Amino acid sequence: LVVGNKAVTRPFSLKDLAGSAGRMDIICRCIAQALFISHGIRKDVEVYVLLLGEPDPPKALKVVGSEVRYMAPDERNIGGIIRKALSLNLDDKWRRSTPGVYIARKGLKDLLNELNKKYNIVYLREDGIDIRKIACNLNNPLFILGDHMGLREEDERIVMNYAEVIVSVSKLSLQADQCIVIA
Amino acid sequence: LVVGNKAVTRPFSLKDLAGSAGRMDIICRCIAQALFISHGIRKDVEVYVLLLGEPDPPKALKVVGSEVRYMAPDERNIGGIIRKALSLNLDDKWRRSTPGVYIARKGLKDLLNELNKKYNIVYLREDGIDIRKIACNLNNPLFILGDHMGLREEDERIVMNYAEVIVSVSKLSLQADQCIVIA
Repeated sequence: LVVGNKAVTRPFSLKDLAGSAGRMDIICRCIAQALFISHGIRKDVEVYVLLLGEPDPPKALKVVGSEVRYMAPDERNIGGIIRKALSLNLDDKWRRSTPGVYIARKGLKDLLNELNKKYNIVYLREDGIDIRKIACNLNNPLFILGDHMGLREEDERIVMNYAEVIVSVSKLSLQADQCIVIA
Repeated sequence: LVVGNKAVTRPFSLKDLAGSAGRMDIICRCIAQALFISHGIRKDVEVYVLLLGEPDPPKALKVVGSEVRYMAPDERNIGGIIRKALSLNLDDKWRRSTPGVYIARKGLKDLLNELNKKYNIVYLREDGIDIRKIACNLNNPLFILGDHMGLREEDERIVMNYAEVIVSVSKLSLQADQCIVIA
């Protein structure tokens, strides 16, 4: 689960993912890095994204590795898939946009209430326990991480109500998609 | 050093990095993942790219972390920087295009002759020694890896003349930029 603090909640220009789309480039890379291996997709992975940018937050995206079709790992391709999902009318039920891609009106708490039933919540933060020391004990984990801004204080408080452990992938502060690769 | 087997050697459209630019999206991601950490650049890293696509191969790019300015980690931004470099007239000497970015007419053998004086050459391939077992012994390494097509047989033969060791980052075949993150 990646939290996009500024990621816009309306269709956006594919020419300006890193600017007016609210660092949607980060979200695209996170989805790509979680799903793709060389010439294939990790069918056992789901990616969730919380879009908190203007003008219509919050919106949640779900990408299901076992169902995804016609997705390529470049930012522009995934940006187009997100843009399409953002054109749908929403309520709090997941609605399918393209194969394997769903969108709904959900905030962080609603989303974690749902994911908590299915996954063990792990918060990725620089000061956590080294993931290499506990990787073997992580059973069906859902990793939560923020974009370039991290998590807002209020969101971090919510996450801490659900997280079983705080885990770090590096002593350096890496980019979100890099953390996903390592995880 | 990333080998872009189809990466074009003329200016290209930023709208089609993954298509008509010969999977330039992969090259952009590799440069980004090698250079960037969160809110910063690894000043001790150099990235080399060999562009072998039409219409004017080979061309070599050099990106010097300690000199780079005005670079963002999104594919479109780095694509624009590469495109600018490809508009220059070249000979076999490095020519500066933008801060920290150089381009020259060099093939794989010329490039490795040069890099071999400065770095210990390590070939990244799935069947190599687990990098975690020998990371401590890798002194000033230059990692060589291919794009989505790997290395051509003739290029692999050249690399093997210079490589001190073959190293693997995962038993899975990962994407080139993912290998770089882990390395």
